Amino acid sequence: MSSAYAELAAYARKTATFESLARLGGWDQETYMPAKAAEARGEQMSAMAELTHQRWTSEEFARLLEAGEADPQVAGDARLSASVRMFRRDFDRRSRVPADLVAEIARHQSASQQVWKKAREASDFEMFRPYLEKMIALMRRKAECYGIPEGGELYDALLEDYEPGARASRIEAIFTPLRERLAGLLREIARGTAPSEAPLEVRVPEQAQHALGLFVLRAIGFDLEAGRLDTTTHPFCEGLAPGDTRLTTRYREQRFSDALYGTMHEGGHGLYEQGLPKDRHFGEPLGEAIGLGMHESQSRMWENFVGRSRAFWEWLLPHANRHFDGALDGFTPLDLYRATNTGKASLIRVEADEATYNMHVMLRFEIERALFRGEIEAADIPGLWNEKMREYLGIEVPDDARGCLQDVHWSFGLLGYFPTYTLGNLHAAQQFEAIRRAHPDLDDQMARGEFGAVLSWTREHIHAKGRQFLSDELCEQITGEPLSADPLMRHLEGKLREVYGI
Amino acid sequence: MSSAYAELAAYARKTATFESLARLGGWDQETYMPAKAAEARGEQMSAMAELTHQRWTSEEFARLLEAGEADPQVAGDARLSASVRMFRRDFDRRSRVPADLVAEIARHQSASQQVWKKAREASDFEMFRPYLEKMIALMRRKAECYGIPEGGELYDALLEDYEPGARASRIEAIFTPLRERLAGLLREIARGTAPSEAPLEVRVPEQAQHALGLFVLRAIGFDLEAGRLDTTTHPFCEGLAPGDTRLTTRYREQRFSDALYGTMHEGGHGLYEQGLPKDRHFGEPLGEAIGLGMHESQSRMWENFVGRSRAFWEWLLPHANRHFDGALDGFTPLDLYRATNTGKASLIRVEADEATYNMHVMLRFEIERALFRGEIEAADIPGLWNEKMREYLGIEVPDDARGCLQDVHWSFGLLGYFPTYTLGNLHAAQQFEAIRRAHPDLDDQMARGEFGAVLSWTREHIHAKGRQFLSDELCEQITGEPLSADPLMRHLEGKLREVYGI
Repeated sequence: MSSAYAELAAYARKTATFESLARLGGWDQETYMPAKAAEARGEQMSAMAELTHQRWTSEEFARLLEAGEADPQVAGDARLSASVRMFRRDFDRRSRVPADLVAEIARHQSASQQVWKKAREASDFEMFRPYLEKMIALMRRKAECYGIPEGGELYDALLEDYEPGARASRIEAIFTPLRERLAGLLREIARGTAPSEAPLEVRVPEQAQHALGLFVLRAIGFDLEAGRLDTTTHPFCEGLAPGDTRLTTRYREQRFSDALYGTMHEGGHGLYEQGLPKDRHFGEPLGEAIGLGMHESQSRMWENFVGRSRAFWEWLLPHANRHFDGALDGFTPLDLYRATNTGKASLIRVEADEATYNMHVMLRFEIERALFRGEIEAADIPGLWNEKMREYLGIEVPDDARGCLQDVHWSFGLLGYFPTYTLGNLHAAQQFEAIRRAHPDLDDQMARGEFGAVLSWTREHIHAKGRQFLSDELCEQITGEPLSADPLMRHLEGKLREVYGI
Repeated sequence: MSSAYAELAAYARKTATFESLARLGGWDQETYMPAKAAEARGEQMSAMAELTHQRWTSEEFARLLEAGEADPQVAGDARLSASVRMFRRDFDRRSRVPADLVAEIARHQSASQQVWKKAREASDFEMFRPYLEKMIALMRRKAECYGIPEGGELYDALLEDYEPGARASRIEAIFTPLRERLAGLLREIARGTAPSEAPLEVRVPEQAQHALGLFVLRAIGFDLEAGRLDTTTHPFCEGLAPGDTRLTTRYREQRFSDALYGTMHEGGHGLYEQGLPKDRHFGEPLGEAIGLGMHESQSRMWENFVGRSRAFWEWLLPHANRHFDGALDGFTPLDLYRATNTGKASLIRVEADEATYNMHVMLRFEIERALFRGEIEAADIPGLWNEKMREYLGIEVPDDARGCLQDVHWSFGLLGYFPTYTLGNLHAAQQFEAIRRAHPDLDDQMARGEFGAVLSWTREHIHAKGRQFLSDELCEQITGEPLSADPLMRHLEGKLREVYGI
């Protein structure tokens, strides 16, 4: 082992250790923190953010990085040199944004989020507009600090924050056929028979839903000795530290499928976190996830490709019925499979079904990109939003609260984040086809409650590799094809035509 | 306000903010952390300990401290100059212990604790002896680094870690009459009639006990919006940060009084933490507790002086019976008062009653002091322990597991810690007499469930003052007398003679 690399890794591990305590603070804030601790928590988080930013951009880190780059032992080792390249990428990006811009963004985030909340309540886009305009301007400055990435445009500089190597032009080339085929599919199933959602309307107490969630997490391979499941308003997965991956979900007495799929979704993120080689490589790119798109592929795979399959319900139904004290008596696996697979246009992204969800994402991506290209202004957003909702999903937006004010992301400056949701669906579909090729009897296995084929394939091909490759590179390596819209469309067309009896 | 002081305070607040995240890590470790996160948590805690030690002993802090000391505005303000004196005391003590000794102690702590656990299981003192010997030697080196405090002996250097200003000679002067009068009282009540403990033997489900605990915490004034109550193996109170004070307790279906008094005990610590002026003075001595003895006085006051009073049971019994679904039907407040006030010799400190508890503490104090004076060796401990148990409590120790191996403290190097438990009882008794003088109708108030007199007295006289004074100074200021054994003995004699019908 290169000693230059070992020193670099030790420094990074310590910085990551500080970051992990900040993540604990974030988790606690959403789960158990008393209300009156909010101000102190803010102080703790900003002190840690300052400390870790200093460490990631320090002269000492720069020296260690240069020594790693100059070391012939690193150059001769593909994994180590990939790791050092990613360290360099992150260092350069972090160093390019001046501290006063970071501070200004942080200040504006908190003001902007508060105003967004009020504006959404009042469904008043004009109230939010000046804050959004300032946020876009700040993000534009940030993107300019990063600089336009190779072969890209200004918006790509922000995409890189969430998905290293992503380019808007490449995303557009995949999203356009996806949008067209999706629209065709939605028109097609509109002529079919919509499935009954009756099995999802039974009332199930929270505790029974929680017990089922833990049962499913265990079955899919999530290690509850190295993680937990708690309840929060907004579900999330936090890969806190080695051996410590925390999931949250939320329960509604009606529609138990919300919590079930929410738990499987976060569980998928959690399996990625648990599969990363953090014990040896915590703080190094080798121990980290590739990006948000690949992360989302793992959550979507378990939620949609496993969890909404007919085989899954053949296995789960009797167990669910037992946990639910017979509430699902009389329903068949086919009933559950049908009920959990609809293709119905709706207004709110987070409530959308598997098929229409991607339309919500593409619309946001197009608006963000147009903003950064200077083709539209913030003031144009509501009109454009409503026009696209009509065009893509055929529905009228009654007000901005259920339109362009519905998501928190823009108020927080998360521009370039949305496309990773659909990238995740695309990657998941393409990976799942590869898994099926390797395991032709996958459905039989899943119907017996055996999910090891999915877990071990993702562990070996994705989790174990950390950030050695970019998403697109890895996709080609492990599926044999560049990322495309075809596998996702084959998956949705197959399922929805069956369910709608086309 | 002095600007030199303001700069010093801002630096300290930031250091304390880092410390508060480490405390969150400590709390989480005992409550919700997954088992496999233990190693990462150890890394997090040691990284934070290193960081905060650096900040508390840095040249920058030394400069700020000197500027504070030189500032005439500080000198002219009694509160600020008390605060700066305490900053200086802590800085000097921290700076005197070399980093390699700190590291050696930390390493030995973890080895020593593991061996202690096994030795206790096997009741084999010889297995633990070499580890204890090394720990005593390390603590002696640490004490020598601190230096013998003014007017004291080497052991006092360690006492100062837990109770600034404490001296073994002064403690001995109070403990000796306490021990003699306690022994007399125990002989006296041995001739009386022991109370029935039947009311404590009813079975009460955990949830009902938890609900009663929250009910009592609210009644005594603990702010549950600025704190919480969770379940752990070993109950504790963690004053995490401004607005964030976390208590824990444990439940046994039988003997609900364990959890009730455990909760009131930690609640008392919690009221002190919530009463400290942390919003303005977090990180400064002005926002911190005086020492462990004074802290323990607040927990003991609520547990024993309020919670084990007859007036308290007159108020609580109907509420407890309601929470417990009628399990206490037929018992009177007098029955509960009698059942919760015994004076019965027993082997284990943490299970001892209010009266005999102090004997366990004094025995440990005497052994620790003799070790540091070189009058005994570690090998002498079991014999001396058993001899003192016979002399002070009249019972035979059957094995070392129930004798000198019962407590974790020594394995962890906590030498000088034990006496603060009895100091707490002494302070509580003396304060409670002062509260009674100020509120002659205190029992009537408590019988109505009104505890504001106790809370507001302690808030004003103790909590609000932070560390402006040493325990002994504050005791004289607020009770009019130096600390003595008399109030505690008056309290115990009055109660136990009544209960045992003497």
